[in-house]
Amino acid sequence: MPFETKRLVDWGDCDPAGIVFYPTFFRWMDSAFHEMTTALGFDQAALPAHGVFATPLRDAGATFHAPARPNAHLDLSVRITRMGTSSFSLGYAFTDTGRAIAEGREDRVCVRQEADGGITKAPLPPKIRALLETYRD
Amino acid sequence: MPFETKRLVDWGDCDPAGIVFYPTFFRWMDSAFHEMTTALGFDQAALPAHGVFATPLRDAGATFHAPARPNAHLDLSVRITRMGTSSFSLGYAFTDTGRAIAEGREDRVCVRQEADGGITKAPLPPKIRALLETYRD
Amino acid sequence: MPFETKRLVDWGDCDPAGIVFYPTFFRWMDSAFHEMTTALGFDQAALPAHGVFATPLRDAGATFHAPARPNAHLDLSVRITRMGTSSFSLGYAFTDTGRAIAEGREDRVCVRQEADGGITKAPLPPKIRALLETYRD
Amino acid sequence: MPFETKRLVDWGDCDPAGIVFYPTFFRWMDSAFHEMTTALGFDQAALPAHGVFATPLRDAGATFHAPARPNAHLDLSVRITRMGTSSFSLGYAFTDTGRAIAEGREDRVCVRQEADGGITKAPLPPKIRALLETYRD
Repeated sequence: MPFETKRLVDWGDCDPAGIVFYPTFFRWMDSAFHEMTTALGFDQAALPAHGVFATPLRDAGATFHAPARPNAHLDLSVRITRMGTSSFSLGYAFTDTGRAIAEGREDRVCVRQEADGGITKAPLPPKIRALLETYRD
Repeated sequence: MPFETKRLVDWGDCDPAGIVFYPTFFRWMDSAFHEMTTALGFDQAALPAHGVFATPLRDAGATFHAPARPNAHLDLSVRITRMGTSSFSLGYAFTDTGRAIAEGREDRVCVRQEADGGITKAPLPPKIRALLETYRD
Repeated sequence: MPFETKRLVDWGDCDPAGIVFYPTFFRWMDSAFHEMTTALGFDQAALPAHGVFATPLRDAGATFHAPARPNAHLDLSVRITRMGTSSFSLGYAFTDTGRAIAEGREDRVCVRQEADGGITKAPLPPKIRALLETYRD
Repeated sequence: MPFETKRLVDWGDCDPAGIVFYPTFFRWMDSAFHEMTTALGFDQAALPAHGVFATPLRDAGATFHAPARPNAHLDLSVRITRMGTSSFSLGYAFTDTGRAIAEGREDRVCVRQEADGGITKAPLPPKIRALLETYRD
């Protein structure tokens, strides 16, 4: 069962060709990730209590099927597609009244901040893992 | 003597009308402020050593004279127009080969972070004040 | 009676100080303008039928009262504060559970595109004027 | 021989974790693509003369190796990695004084606009193909 949300295509999300400027899709993906984790009961501010500083990206990608224009109401579904020791992956699907617009993927890794400011991998906390299971593919 | 820099109008900075999406001008203003302070020898990371956490905005505005399109090379000048006890103001002018495109203004205030996470005014540090004098109107 | 909408503060809307990057407020203002006109029955795509190419900005400004952080649900109200022959002004108020976060203003002008690609003022169409009256201050 | 450019990490390009908000990398990739094509002698405005309306994305992706922070001066190289009948692919590499920050890839397709507003594939024009050869991997 995926997490379901929506995104309205704003005038400012689009480029001179009149279609969504493609980095906007990644902005929406990141935004939906945070919306989903907040809905699950944890957000970035709650992570340090679990020994995690943040969940930055290791890899991200998207395939674009059809252009989207201002005022389109996109349906956006989010699924957890993989959970590893310290990382996890997400799959995103954007549709417009059932028509495929774009699909995306993110590989995120749990990190903690070292005393010297550096960032190293941290284990995916069991509590977070259990919550992410809700939207497991 | 103003601080002088340039900004290239990117395809993604523009909207479906083919002209710069106006919030982009504010993004460039903030960007030029940081470029100027870095050139002067301090950036946001250096502020805490002066007892300042950040320099957020109290007010910002812009007047738009003519549209700018992708690939325009805008000249951008930055001036310090006012320095107060804990705040200062900046004036920005965007031109395209001499033609006025937009003018902007920012009122910034020095703040420090309180133990409870709250933000309160901090004095404009004398060292920073002296450096900003370089580009005083 | 203002037009009322909401904006969720995304992680990516915020800067390293952990608060909304101020150009984001202008992006939300533009976005709410388009949401309002669409709700009234016209959007940018409908304007040419009224002899108007677009409604670009002549002036914009904002006053920032308190910082907003990720996951804040901002209430945003939009009012038409002035209607002239070919231009009109809007007032925006962002609040967080009643607390003032920011106020903004936009002066927009109706333009048409000339045969040579230039842009000149066009009259505010009577039909659009009547619709904007709905949210007149 | 790749096309070489640079991107300065702006304060507003970064998120509350103090590192580049990842969709920004895609914005830079798109920006560098346009900078490269302009340097080669064609930009989006020149494409219609070659029977092409635009070069939207079919696929995009990035791998993130190390975080980048405000004021970093990133070197960005762009290579043409593939040219097909109507599409082509690009490879991007971001480095900070030689250290790998991120790598990206874009698959772009030439499209034309149909009379009904729809978008269909168009051949990669021979003149454009020859110019892109300059930065062929």
